[in-house]
Amino acid sequence: MATMHPHRSHTCGALRSADTGQNVRLSGWIHRKRDHGGLMFIDLRDHYGLTQLVISPETPGFDRVERLRAESVIRVDGQVLARSADTINANLPTGEVEIRVSSIDVISEAAELPLPVFGEPDYPEELRLKHRYLDLRRETLHKNIVLRSKVIQSIRNRMIGQGFLEYQTPILTASSPEGARDFLVPSRLHPSKFYALPQAPQQFKQLLMVAGFDRYFQIAPCFRDEDLRADRSLEFYQLDVEMSFVTQDDIFAAIEPVMHGVFEEFADGKSVTPYPFPRIPYRDSIAWYGSDKPDLRNPIKMADVSERFRGGGFGLFARILEDAKNAVWAIPAPKGGSRAFCDRMNSWAQGEGQPGLGYIFWSEDQGAWGGPIAKNLGAEATEALMAEIGLGQGDAAFFVAGDPKSFYKFAGSARTKVGTDLKLIDEDRFEFVWIVDFPMFEMNEETNHVDFSHNPFSMPQGELEALETKDPLDILAYQYDIVCNGYELCSGAVRNHLPEVMLKAFDIAGYGPSVVEEQFGGMLNAFRHGAPPHGGLAPGIDRIVMLLAGQTAIREVIAFPLNQQGQDLLMNAPSEVEEKQLKELHVRLAPPIKV
Amino acid sequence: MATMHPHRSHTCGALRSADTGQNVRLSGWIHRKRDHGGLMFIDLRDHYGLTQLVISPETPGFDRVERLRAESVIRVDGQVLARSADTINANLPTGEVEIRVSSIDVISEAAELPLPVFGEPDYPEELRLKHRYLDLRRETLHKNIVLRSKVIQSIRNRMIGQGFLEYQTPILTASSPEGARDFLVPSRLHPSKFYALPQAPQQFKQLLMVAGFDRYFQIAPCFRDEDLRADRSLEFYQLDVEMSFVTQDDIFAAIEPVMHGVFEEFADGKSVTPYPFPRIPYRDSIAWYGSDKPDLRNPIKMADVSERFRGGGFGLFARILEDAKNAVWAIPAPKGGSRAFCDRMNSWAQGEGQPGLGYIFWSEDQGAWGGPIAKNLGAEATEALMAEIGLGQGDAAFFVAGDPKSFYKFAGSARTKVGTDLKLIDEDRFEFVWIVDFPMFEMNEETNHVDFSHNPFSMPQGELEALETKDPLDILAYQYDIVCNGYELCSGAVRNHLPEVMLKAFDIAGYGPSVVEEQFGGMLNAFRHGAPPHGGLAPGIDRIVMLLAGQTAIREVIAFPLNQQGQDLLMNAPSEVEEKQLKELHVRLAPPIKV
Repeated sequence: MATMHPHRSHTCGALRSADTGQNVRLSGWIHRKRDHGGLMFIDLRDHYGLTQLVISPETPGFDRVERLRAESVIRVDGQVLARSADTINANLPTGEVEIRVSSIDVISEAAELPLPVFGEPDYPEELRLKHRYLDLRRETLHKNIVLRSKVIQSIRNRMIGQGFLEYQTPILTASSPEGARDFLVPSRLHPSKFYALPQAPQQFKQLLMVAGFDRYFQIAPCFRDEDLRADRSLEFYQLDVEMSFVTQDDIFAAIEPVMHGVFEEFADGKSVTPYPFPRIPYRDSIAWYGSDKPDLRNPIKMADVSERFRGGGFGLFARILEDAKNAVWAIPAPKGGSRAFCDRMNSWAQGEGQPGLGYIFWSEDQGAWGGPIAKNLGAEATEALMAEIGLGQGDAAFFVAGDPKSFYKFAGSARTKVGTDLKLIDEDRFEFVWIVDFPMFEMNEETNHVDFSHNPFSMPQGELEALETKDPLDILAYQYDIVCNGYELCSGAVRNHLPEVMLKAFDIAGYGPSVVEEQFGGMLNAFRHGAPPHGGLAPGIDRIVMLLAGQTAIREVIAFPLNQQGQDLLMNAPSEVEEKQLKELHVRLAPPIKV
Repeated sequence: MATMHPHRSHTCGALRSADTGQNVRLSGWIHRKRDHGGLMFIDLRDHYGLTQLVISPETPGFDRVERLRAESVIRVDGQVLARSADTINANLPTGEVEIRVSSIDVISEAAELPLPVFGEPDYPEELRLKHRYLDLRRETLHKNIVLRSKVIQSIRNRMIGQGFLEYQTPILTASSPEGARDFLVPSRLHPSKFYALPQAPQQFKQLLMVAGFDRYFQIAPCFRDEDLRADRSLEFYQLDVEMSFVTQDDIFAAIEPVMHGVFEEFADGKSVTPYPFPRIPYRDSIAWYGSDKPDLRNPIKMADVSERFRGGGFGLFARILEDAKNAVWAIPAPKGGSRAFCDRMNSWAQGEGQPGLGYIFWSEDQGAWGGPIAKNLGAEATEALMAEIGLGQGDAAFFVAGDPKSFYKFAGSARTKVGTDLKLIDEDRFEFVWIVDFPMFEMNEETNHVDFSHNPFSMPQGELEALETKDPLDILAYQYDIVCNGYELCSGAVRNHLPEVMLKAFDIAGYGPSVVEEQFGGMLNAFRHGAPPHGGLAPGIDRIVMLLAGQTAIREVIAFPLNQQGQDLLMNAPSEVEEKQLKELHVRLAPPIKV
């Protein structure tokens, strides 16, 4: 053993039956310890796996190890033995062998654990975050973080394979006048001035295109000082992408193989939408799914059935339809044909603050469509209605009536509820869809003025001519989202690279040229010195990993996340700082006055 | 041409003589435009290269293009023609062809350029930064930024090839009580509290090791609010690395192939030190090179020649040597044997604030060693001295006397000056060296107390026993730097993972346990729950790219750097923010009072 490495000859995941007889040295954490017939069995753990150690009472150090807590770090020397057939653990790559230990060193003794590792029992998140170095040893979280690393590397390699290069953009940058709330950083050298952390490298990636770099990507850290949610954090990463001399189709064609490929690689057998991904115009998505981020694993597609009710037997809907802006939508519920289910849905709707949820269901007892609406419509009209939306024996449908602008979100929730409760959602799929043709402008209901509906920097379809001739609310933008399983993974756009088109678009939204020049002068100036047509998008890395890890909280795929209150409980951030530091930064505290 | 892509069928770097006869569409920037025999020749440029366009006066749009400024973006359709033998441009990959243009569209007209692109004439840096989108189109800078991207990707792949995984650590984190000045970020949700941007992910990478991740790396953004220099910026990237269950040798063995490999890949023919890289103990580096970041391309090695002067004929040095802490060092200057050179060096030393620089030189006239020192020492002693340091006919040596602690930096500069002026430095090499065995502690001359000399978290050689039994100033640390061509590329260390050793080390440096617990409680606590031996390092990415790009300023390898005053002149950062924003963040401005 003269040339043995001081810490280990193998990792805890390396030994196989072919290694039987070898003298080895292992280091790792005591994952689990148990006595069995006088012998001590230890599962020794490191990043790479688990190896079973067998220690007999005469081994020097036996007593000390017997008293050690789990999660202490030890180093052992010993010999690899084949396990007997009945003790082989087929679930473990090292399960055919064990180490007969000849000597033991205690490297780092663990104090009492605030959080157990073995078995991963549920623990409050605050405790998990405060002792993240223990939490991260747990199998699931450890695996998630490794998955994240591999997903990001796979994305990188795929982007480079598509001819993109990664360029870093600044993190200490300028406060952005639009978008969410910025994090600010006081400048020491320039009193009363502040840097801002980027909400996204939007302007920089466009400048890179103007600078002629053609195909940019970056796994970019972004920052938004917004309230936290399960799928949102103050600091997040996006796959930031921008391309020059491209159409929307080119952008889709570049990114689809990357998204498809990375999902296929890590989907663990789940099916992934083949590309080209389906494309659904924004307005259809709202009409069919009540959402611009539809979960297409749910097969239900809503339908406008206003014509079936107009002036018809069901007075309530007929009266609602007298107002031209109103409509009646049907939410098909295949195999939902039972009064009990329909009643449950009705109660759920009431719980959501709705007056109720109309329905027609197939009554097995009567061998006919049942429910008040069917009764009022009459058998023939009901049959025609249900046939139109593809329903028959054993099915049901729910109806929402009124102004679609007000009810579409609720209709979308009802669709999700029906799909979930009827188990129509296939969990073993990743369903991708492009939502395209977002409207360029919308009516701001508060101010009653036209405003940008999403990104003011998107190119309006039809360019200057559309802006000059069309009703702003009819103008669509080359703007799109990727949605997967109901999660918006990214939005993107073909950009507006023409100063005169940009000024006109801002003008329509009520911003005069002086405002635009003041707030976006840098960009405009760049566009005035030779700008290529360009566009891009920015899928959220954390959400991609979250989906692939089968998690619903983003904190489960981030090594050191802030908690829901934006605190790092382990490192104690944010924290008080010294007066001297504030003085250097030319700021003073102004805490809210307590009343 | 019905199915032609709306922007381009090829990039400007794609066409070859094999494409002759094809109808193509190109888009790009007008790099250069010239008239020749009635025809207009345009070098059309994009990210991928240049292609020559030929436009005849009858081509629609000729007049408009004739009036266009360089850097406007145009799209042309045309046919690929082979150039005649005498007009082939062998320096251009597309130099065998040109495009006979049949139609032209102006995509984006350039206004007057504040900064020319073609020819890259020298322009003030402030102008270059303000119009970075133009500056970045220039060939050299464009190439540097592409190089940066490729270097980083190569580093990533090599690290992954060595079994490392990349993990992201937080950017919104806690203020660190040691090290340089932090950038602070006021918290909106927690009045009077601040996040800090990481100076380095030091604690997080150590926590990852305690969490069992074994081999971590990250191309990590780091932030230091320090005064800017040519090779330093407020925001920079490091290849952050940490490994578990390793010795110093393991760390060297893991990183050497990465550094060697990436330099070989991008060195453009320059030779790169084969690995294992030489290792020089800190104290030897100071004694031999007057620096802990020696440029080993300079072959000069200094020598302590005190014994040759002690009690000897050169009274000044003999008197200086009466103080035991003093010494005389020789700086050999091979082929520097001329009075003129020695006089120049002497004047240079005076310019550096020194009284002068003693020397001995080979006088061709006299065929003997000359200069006042030689005269005083006598021919025999001079001969012996010069022979000891390997010098003879045609050479010279310079001498520095006094307390080495005070003069070693100057001696190092003199060594550099001699090497540079005598052209001893081979510019076509990348010379790597590990500087090892940094002292753990040093005497703080101001307080006259023992303090940490570098990183307090390094493991002292000899661990607890050394701390308990040795003179602190004699204790070495497992701490090391990589130096390349005189640039410190990184420092690193085997860490101290043992709480009791850490407490003892801090105790020696004058910090009681309560201070350590308060400031580093998170880390200590982690170490108390099973910590592996671990260590790492963090080479600076920007410096690596700077060296490979043959640049001496870090701003030449960053796409959007801040200027020397920490300003982004393009995006206008830092900038004033709205009162409302400050109020939300619970801070007030406190600008310095003007007197």
